[in-house]
Order: sequence, then C-alpha cells, then structure tokens
Amino acid sequence: MSSLQGNLLVAQSGGPSPVINASLAGVIAEALKHEDEIVEIYGGLNGIQGILNEQLIDLAAESQQTLRALSHTPGAALGTCRYKVKKQEDFDRILQVFEAHNIRYFHYIGGNDSQDTAAKIDALAKERGYELRVVGVPKTIDNDLPLTDHCPGFGSVAKHIGITVRELSLDNAAMGQNDFVSILEVMGRNAGWLAASSVLAHRKEKRDDRNPSNTHYGCNAPHIVLLPEVPFNADNFIRRVEEVLKNNEHCFVVVSEGVQDATGNYLGADTTSTDSFGHAVLGGAGEYLRSLVEERFDGVKARSSKLGITQRAASHNASKTDVDEAELCGREAVKAAINGESGKMVILARSEKENYAVHTLLAPLNEIANGVKVFPEKWIGEDRMSIHPDFIRYALPLIQGELQLPYDQGLPKYAQLSANLVQRRLDKYVTV
Amino acid sequence: MSSLQGNLLVAQSGGPSPVINASLAGVIAEALKHEDEIVEIYGGLNGIQGILNEQLIDLAAESQQTLRALSHTPGAALGTCRYKVKKQEDFDRILQVFEAHNIRYFHYIGGNDSQDTAAKIDALAKERGYELRVVGVPKTIDNDLPLTDHCPGFGSVAKHIGITVRELSLDNAAMGQNDFVSILEVMGRNAGWLAASSVLAHRKEKRDDRNPSNTHYGCNAPHIVLLPEVPFNADNFIRRVEEVLKNNEHCFVVVSEGVQDATGNYLGADTTSTDSFGHAVLGGAGEYLRSLVEERFDGVKARSSKLGITQRAASHNASKTDVDEAELCGREAVKAAINGESGKMVILARSEKENYAVHTLLAPLNEIANGVKVFPEKWIGEDRMSIHPDFIRYALPLIQGELQLPYDQGLPKYAQLSANLVQRRLDKYVTV
Repeated sequence: MSSLQGNLLVAQSGGPSPVINASLAGVIAEALKHEDEIVEIYGGLNGIQGILNEQLIDLAAESQQTLRALSHTPGAALGTCRYKVKKQEDFDRILQVFEAHNIRYFHYIGGNDSQDTAAKIDALAKERGYELRVVGVPKTIDNDLPLTDHCPGFGSVAKHIGITVRELSLDNAAMGQNDFVSILEVMGRNAGWLAASSVLAHRKEKRDDRNPSNTHYGCNAPHIVLLPEVPFNADNFIRRVEEVLKNNEHCFVVVSEGVQDATGNYLGADTTSTDSFGHAVLGGAGEYLRSLVEERFDGVKARSSKLGITQRAASHNASKTDVDEAELCGREAVKAAINGESGKMVILARSEKENYAVHTLLAPLNEIANGVKVFPEKWIGEDRMSIHPDFIRYALPLIQGELQLPYDQGLPKYAQLSANLVQRRLDKYVTV
Repeated sequence: MSSLQGNLLVAQSGGPSPVINASLAGVIAEALKHEDEIVEIYGGLNGIQGILNEQLIDLAAESQQTLRALSHTPGAALGTCRYKVKKQEDFDRILQVFEAHNIRYFHYIGGNDSQDTAAKIDALAKERGYELRVVGVPKTIDNDLPLTDHCPGFGSVAKHIGITVRELSLDNAAMGQNDFVSILEVMGRNAGWLAASSVLAHRKEKRDDRNPSNTHYGCNAPHIVLLPEVPFNADNFIRRVEEVLKNNEHCFVVVSEGVQDATGNYLGADTTSTDSFGHAVLGGAGEYLRSLVEERFDGVKARSSKLGITQRAASHNASKTDVDEAELCGREAVKAAINGESGKMVILARSEKENYAVHTLLAPLNEIANGVKVFPEKWIGEDRMSIHPDFIRYALPLIQGELQLPYDQGLPKYAQLSANLVQRRLDKYVTV
C-alpha cells in the first residue's frame, strides 16, 4: 500500500436522513487524525451539483461545538441534490475540480443513485490515471441498499414510526369509538422496511401477578400493514378490515407510500408527476384508503395522517444505535481510503453473537449501485398484510437508545455550518 | 361553607391531548389528600357515556407507578367520548348514577362541549336539591376556550409543531431545490392558535463575532401561515408564494385544517361527512394547496405532510410547563370543590410579572360552554398570512421544558390503568 497525500472531499446526496450528518461528523473526525495523508478537509455543497460548480467549503475551519452538534442535526449540513450525472462532460468537469484542488480522497454519503455516481468517478479516475480513492458511506431511511445488513438512517425513522404508532394507538383506543379505522402513511418508496417497522409498536399487555394493579400498556396496533412488495387488492383489504373490526374497537392500518395495485398504479398517486430520476411522485395512499373505507362501509369512520418528510427529519426521535453506526461508517470510510481502498462502500455486518453487535466490511460500489433490497418474502405474513415476528428480532436492536438533545427556549438546538468557501480555481461551469 | 362527604367522580371527554392524563393525575393526587370529605375516587369510562352505562372504576386501587406514569402518557386513560347529552332522560340517568354511588364531587376534564354538559348536570342537581359540586378542568389543544389565558394541551402540541417545522425546514433547505413549496397541515378546527404556533420555529441566525466559525442555525420558516380566521383567497396566496420564492430557495406554508374560502367551504374537505356534533370532517387542506401550487406554477414542486391525530398524541414532545399546569388545574379543581364551589371551571391567569408565572381562578361553566376564543385580530400580520411577534411573547413560555420519558426497548413506556370496575347498583341503560 502506497501512502497518498492530498485533500479530502466529502459530500451528501439524496433525501436527508436523521443521521446523514452523523456520518459527515464521522468522516471529519477520522480525517483530522490522518495529518500525514490528509491536508485539507473540504465539503462539497449540494452534492455533486456543488462539486460541478466548484462550491467547496473548508470543514476544518468549523468550530468544535458545531462538529459535535452535527450528529444530532436533521437535514444535510452540506446540502444534497437529486442531480443525476449522466453526461461525459459532467464527469470530466468533476475530475478537473478534483485535480484543481488536489482531491485524493472522495467520500459520497448517499443511497444507490449516489454510489452509482461514485463508482463512475472512481472508474474514470482509474482510466485517466488520476490517483484517487473513492469510498462511499451508506445512507437511506428506506433500508433498501444491497449487501449491508441495514442502512444508517433506517433505525431512527423506524423508531420514530414505532413511537408514533404507539402514541396514535393510545389516542385511538381512548376515543372508544366502535368501527373506527386509523390510517398512517409512511415512506419507503418501493421497499416495505419502514412500513414493516410499525410493528415494533406491538407489545403484550403485562399484568404483574404479585401486584395486579400494576399494568403495562399493551399495544396490538398496527393490525394491517400494506407493503409495496404486495400488490394491493381492495376486496382483500376491506375483508381484512372487517375481520379486525369484529375483534377490536378500531383497526389501525399502516400503508407505505409505494403500494401499487396489480396493474402497477400507485394508490392515489399523482401519476403525471415524476422527480428528476424519473421516479413517480408518491403520496396519496393514506387518503385513498380513507375514502375507500368510508365508501365501502356504512357508518365506519376513518382518519389518515401522512408523516411525509417530517419522518426523515425527526432527529428528536433518533436512535442512539443508528447515530453511532452512522458515525462509524463515516470513520471507517476514511480509514479504508487511507489504507488504499477505492471503488468500495462501507457496509454493516451483524456479528454472530447472542447480543447485537456490528462490524463494518467493504463492498464494491458497482454491486451497490442501483440495486434495491426489497422487504424479504420470508417476513411477510401469510395473509400478506402482516409482518413475521422474526423481523422484530432483526429491527429491534436498531432502534435502541435515545439522544439527549440540547434545548434552547423550548426547541432543540441544531447546528449550522459557517461554510467558508474555498477559493475557486476554475472558470464557471453551467449544468443543465 | 358546609363540609360535604361522599365520593368523587372524574371523567375525560373530547379529543385526547398530550396532557389530559396529567390533569387526571392532578385530580387523583389532590383527592387522596382529603380523606375527611372524599371517601372513594372513581373514574368514569369513556366520559359521560360510561357514566350513563354505570361503568365506573376504582382509581384509588391503581398503583403508584401507574399514577406517576399517567402524566406523560398520551391518549385519555379513562377513555373519552363525543356523545352529546341532549335528552332529559340522559340527565336524569346521570343523577341516578350519582345518587346510587353517592357521587358528591364531579370533575369533567374537557373542552367547551364537555363543560356545557357539566353546567347542565350542575343546574339539574341544584334544581333537584341533590348536593353536588361540579368543577371542570380545561382541556383542548385548540386553545379556544374563553376566559382562560391558555388551555392545557396547547403548549405541548405547539411545541411539537415548532420542533416539526424546524426539523422540516432543515430538510427543505438541504435539498437545495429552487422553487420548492413545503406544506404542513395542522389541527385547530376553527381557531388558528396551533397554525400560528408554527412561528415559534423562527430563529435569527447568530454569528459569534469573537468566533465567526461558531454559527447557530437560523430559521425563517414558516414563510406563510394560513389561519381559519382569514378567508382563503387562492390568488392572494399564489402571489405571496411567488414573492417568497423570489427571496428564498423554498417556501414553507403552514395551513390549519379549518381554513375556509370566502363562501365558507373548507379547503379540500369532505363536505358530506360530519362528526356527532355536526362539525364538518376536516383534513384535505394540505393536499389541496399542494395541487393548487403545482397547477398554478410551472416547474414548482410541492410536498405536503399532514400530522393529523399524531400531533395531539405526541407526548414524547410534551412541554414540561404544560404538563405541570395540566396537573395544577386538576388539583385546583378538587380544592375548589372541597371549598364549596360548584358550576365553575378552573382557568389559568398569567401573572403580571416580568418572568412568566400563572395562577388559577374560577370561571362560571355557563360562560365557558360553547364559547370559542379565536386567534386575535391584533396578532394577524398585515398581509393576513403572517403572525405578529407579540404572539411569540405569549406562546414561548408555554413550550418551555422537556420531560424525561422512561424507555423500554427503544420506545417510551406509557401507563395503562388496571381499571377495576365498581359494582353496578342500577339496571342497564340503553343510550341511542
């Protein structure tokens, strides 16, 4: 392994997660330890888009307070983008920027689209003989990246959904209305991991035999979970709601934004609208089910909530385990690059121990890029609308632990980078 | 004042709030101190409906752990109802149940509809010469009860909305998309207090002159607040969005579920559906604005979230100040009844001191019942879509302080009453 001296560039991409900034903090913390190899630590604003525009900031100039607060701050401190690099000129420009600023270490924190971009940059640098080490850091609340046991970001949003379902079910139960259907729409795109995580709210009612007046809250909500992996059938759904209402005062339904019917149409989606990657804009599944229930049943009331983007920004409910693992992935990416690795992404592997533990490995970027790990068939219940308890064993360790957020006048204190721009060395570049 | 010995009955009504159980805990704690007057402490299940059905439980039999955990538990531990007592037979039955169980103290925790019922029970007892003391405990997240400075429940949901807006705005800012409109729909029915509380997220960006690299996060979201007190005009709204987008990358809109157009139609509401009090079922305002924005602007993207019932169940974000005041109202209601008061509700008055402090007073139930305190004209900005800073001075003290929730396996531990039923003494009663 040859030692490589130069500057490090880190950027964030795609939808923010509650812990994408924790990964950034991990990258910076580790980079500061390698003075011999890493001279300057730069951040690219708004992902690859800012890199194309040569908008780099000096991360080593940030205060220690800011860097410490990053790990509990939602959003993406560097900014992200959904710009898909396709043109050869874009890739050429990226290498020009890297050369102009002597970037030798590049860490892209993002999902599969982002790691695809990282893979292409790595390949181009090799082709051109530009010495560069590219090690990706995984990020997606959807938990749909291949090879890794789970993705940083998933645990925190799963925890937020678990808390929300439990609280909402207490409200529903209190209303004492018969024939009430409560609907919660959650994110996840084409993978059902987040919808499935709602069953983390399940808890058996416990009575203490020695002290029967001491009862613990039991929660059997959600009763129905609709996954994108299972084509939606209105008749089967309505039949299942009917069954649940026979044995319960209310029926709690969790629906993924990505559920489609047998012909591939998203429930209640605006099919005319797509994002810049050509994905359909999702969002109306909960309202669709509410009107379906009220239309099919006489006298049954339904209400729906849509957490929308608030769920991926809910750092106040972040899982400590998730935050720690996100930082770990950032640190390990830098270590791997220092050790001569490139064209890889850090992944999490679960240790074969009785108590939960993880270690990191490296996987080729090419095998991550554009792959999707859907919710596994083995964990989908027989009725296709419930989740196997083995999933709880998988997911429960990921939501453990809480952060102690600092508060200022009643609201959490979040960090903001002072973002000192690095002097430009190239002419302007116009992206289309 | 004559001393009155007998049993106490407490019940909860209307939509739950994050602190309705804290008021219940306050009633129980105070009642336990008055052994000479209060013999048994009963809870009525599902509000007046359970009282009609003689479903009373023995609250003194609950464990200390359960009572302590009540104050941070969402929902309504006794259950609530939306049953509107209208028939004379219902009122007769209520008095029969009171007589059969020697109820001499009655505390109804609820909003204006509930205090209306309490007022009628008080009047009937006086008419029949049945010695009874009725003192109501205020509860509503909508903050729309007259006479009281504010209502227990409001501060916690205001805090949750403030936190949500701040987190969501960080996510929006990170996306670095030009021409993006973010929409958050909140509750509040016909009063704009909760929508207005979103401006608690506003914070000036602070730079420390001695240490310019230490920056605090600044937040100017929300940019537009749509209140039910202001008739909605699509052209004015679109013009305002356009203005905001000139100076900002994105535009953050908070809309109350209760916003109506000039002809009195709720935005995107299902006008065919009403609840049991005849109120229209609200809910589509956010989605309506999203489609309006995308229709009127070319290339502008919009996303909406609807917190729905989750916002009033979000005990994990409860305000400590609000929880303490909710308990105080419960305790003071019992004290007032012991002191011979009846036909009153506890209200909160703000002390004329530099630092925030409250004390309680009593107001006649008749003046509370069915009154609505809308968001005051003086705090609506000149453009009719913003909030005057004086409102922040009013609301900021109400969101101060956080609870330290106990957690069990990654989720908050909430209480459940063991709910031991008191032996029935009357025949069954059929409510319609």
